[in-house]
Amino acid sequence: MAAHGAAPPPGLGEVRDAERRLRGRIHRTPLLTCAGLDRMAGRKLLFKCELLQRTGSFKIRGALNAVRSLVEESERRGRELPRAVVTHSSGNHGQALACAAQAEGIPAYIVVPRTAPQCKQDAIRAYGATLVPCDPTDKSRAETAASVVQETGGVLVHPNQEPKVIAGQGTIALEVLEQALRPDVKVFAAEPSNVDDCYQSKVRGELTPNLRPRDTIADAVKTSIGPNTWPIIRDLVDDVLTVSEEEIKRATWLVWERMKLLIEPTAGVGLAAVLSERFQAVPWDVQNVCIVLCGGNVDLTSLTWLTDRSGKVE
Amino acid sequence: MAAHGAAPPPGLGEVRDAERRLRGRIHRTPLLTCAGLDRMAGRKLLFKCELLQRTGSFKIRGALNAVRSLVEESERRGRELPRAVVTHSSGNHGQALACAAQAEGIPAYIVVPRTAPQCKQDAIRAYGATLVPCDPTDKSRAETAASVVQETGGVLVHPNQEPKVIAGQGTIALEVLEQALRPDVKVFAAEPSNVDDCYQSKVRGELTPNLRPRDTIADAVKTSIGPNTWPIIRDLVDDVLTVSEEEIKRATWLVWERMKLLIEPTAGVGLAAVLSERFQAVPWDVQNVCIVLCGGNVDLTSLTWLTDRSGKVE
Repeated sequence: MAAHGAAPPPGLGEVRDAERRLRGRIHRTPLLTCAGLDRMAGRKLLFKCELLQRTGSFKIRGALNAVRSLVEESERRGRELPRAVVTHSSGNHGQALACAAQAEGIPAYIVVPRTAPQCKQDAIRAYGATLVPCDPTDKSRAETAASVVQETGGVLVHPNQEPKVIAGQGTIALEVLEQALRPDVKVFAAEPSNVDDCYQSKVRGELTPNLRPRDTIADAVKTSIGPNTWPIIRDLVDDVLTVSEEEIKRATWLVWERMKLLIEPTAGVGLAAVLSERFQAVPWDVQNVCIVLCGGNVDLTSLTWLTDRSGKVE
Repeated sequence: MAAHGAAPPPGLGEVRDAERRLRGRIHRTPLLTCAGLDRMAGRKLLFKCELLQRTGSFKIRGALNAVRSLVEESERRGRELPRAVVTHSSGNHGQALACAAQAEGIPAYIVVPRTAPQCKQDAIRAYGATLVPCDPTDKSRAETAASVVQETGGVLVHPNQEPKVIAGQGTIALEVLEQALRPDVKVFAAEPSNVDDCYQSKVRGELTPNLRPRDTIADAVKTSIGPNTWPIIRDLVDDVLTVSEEEIKRATWLVWERMKLLIEPTAGVGLAAVLSERFQAVPWDVQNVCIVLCGGNVDLTSLTWLTDRSGKVE
């Protein structure tokens, strides 16, 4: 299951398989609306509330699909379960893999940057996983994870390049299509200007990792896209919108204040993009916009920026 | 419609009428669960998410039932709509009445204590209502509202003693019964120890208002129960549980952290009661407990207590 080099992107078949594996094991999260935000955007917004998903983010979809696939394979071949699953993650995937592994009785080792929010580290521990600290660089994550795999004889479940993980995340789209939309949708990606590898890749037509990422409040999208996600973005994403840190904070604040949903700032990136000036260029016959609120694992003790924003939002 | 003295409590018929009036005009809020909180409580908890209701609290149910009743009465009698609706409210009912009145094109005057959270005052204004400031005492509220009624020729819609308001709030129960529960439920009330008029009334067997209320973080339940709500509490509420300020803060924090729902502290009172030692005395065959998360209109700039709680919750 380890992701070495590029694998073909999962097709609809793999996403449907994932949907079957996840059935009854995850929440069907609500699709909520907010009249006030519709007025601000000039369109009908549909918020897919993955912050209300098990483990507080959509990442359980991919992690559970990967772990259940391993279990199904063991059963099919009459073999033992994997000795362990291993991953590196800034938090949400780590928490999700820990939860999925615990459900199946498989030990989990999660490599976590020392800088990850404390609440995310605590949550991973609460799911019974072993934390392995690393430096906050892509290189240190990958190397530490590789050595844990070697020591434990476990299976690496990469947070975003593992095809089973990618297919699992895709089940969000199947649910939204069932809940609300027609299948002929446009797909926009949104990311912070400070870590715009997705945007740069799209502009240049080739995978362009963040070599010198700046800091961002959207901590869950600090890592770069990779060889298995780039073809999906290249072929299936209509456009990539980038937003400033101020725009992310404002959007996060708006979802908190108007929708009462405690999203993490990364989940504010999508609304920030829809409220941005650039989005005005999207034709106005695009009237229904679904925004995935990807997670809610926010460190409540770190909200010092909140009090600075008093009165800044109308 | 003004509440003078005691009126008979609304029966099931009035609540069903309210349900009809509200149909299609309010959200059917989700009933969410949280495995982690179930484990802490030792029971299955069902959270009725009225913080996701229109105007951010359940109060729109009562306000809209009152306003729609006035409109229906005008239509039936071939009369003009009321010149105005008037109320006094620490915030959520004011916001709800403003919203309901705006929808029907009726001017609204909301008497608000000067101490009410700024975000609630702003929200009332955003619904086009006129704010009338008063002192933060029951007496000043009532007197100011009475004089506004006289000046405007409007109709008083009392925040909690108006029978149409009481019947509207009752529709929460009909929804929960449809969504989850059997009709043979026990009903517990929960309130802060610092403003325990409901508990004191129950103990003494007679309406006992708060003469010297202390301060509470649960600002939406600072006012006393009244002659029209006391018989309901006396006859239909099985028990009243009181909780400390610390218990309210802890429960609010837990809902934020574990459920990602941005409740206002008043909505933490219910969970605080269920997690309290006193609730352990409730027989363990009571396995399913529905908690109404009544509102989410929290002043985000006032959350200084959050940072003090770091690490205090396991």
